[in-house]
Amino acid sequence: MAIISAPSELFTLVNVFTVAPDDQKELLGHLAQVTEELIRHMPGFVSASFHLSHDGRRVVNYAQWRTEADFRAMHADARLKEHFDYCRAVSRPEPIFCDVAHTCDAEQPDGA
Amino acid sequence: MAIISAPSELFTLVNVFTVAPDDQKELLGHLAQVTEELIRHMPGFVSASFHLSHDGRRVVNYAQWRTEADFRAMHADARLKEHFDYCRAVSRPEPIFCDVAHTCDAEQPDGA
Repeated sequence: MAIISAPSELFTLVNVFTVAPDDQKELLGHLAQVTEELIRHMPGFVSASFHLSHDGRRVVNYAQWRTEADFRAMHADARLKEHFDYCRAVSRPEPIFCDVAHTCDAEQPDGA
Repeated sequence: MAIISAPSELFTLVNVFTVAPDDQKELLGHLAQVTEELIRHMPGFVSASFHLSHDGRRVVNYAQWRTEADFRAMHADARLKEHFDYCRAVSRPEPIFCDVAHTCDAEQPDGA
């Protein structure tokens, strides 16, 4: 469960993986498994939320880290090299590093 | 403030607007204003969270609606035609309609 709020001190990454529809669910399973087994235990990890696009062509990860340095340390961890190689082999990742700038809620949330 | 959880009954849209860096903050201001003044009062609106990418080239909206029909009704509202025309004039929107498939939290969240 991720909470998006502004202002936020968190380092936020929206990663859009473009993938062949046949590979969408397999990529999701891989991302979820590596995150549960390894990434979530790393320093500074806050949350990862994986989404399947309705058109079958994208997997979107909304990820939060305590700091950019924590994220970079994870990304440089040798244990994850095979994971990143796999992601790049089956998809085109487009990482968007960003800050939460403004949030807006319903007056009376009726769907949360 | 948005909460991302799985499974979710919400209709989720990740909209990536690619924009010239000179226009990024103006687009953000426009999106925030229209959302506060008009969109958030529409039936089924749950949340919108606007992000500025560090490279200056993207604005990302993480949006939640109660149902797809609520979202479609908003999108067809004549009062918003000028808004969508403006967005398409200054950016290339890439709307990704998706479902939350899996979420993962830190064991002991230290940055939330």
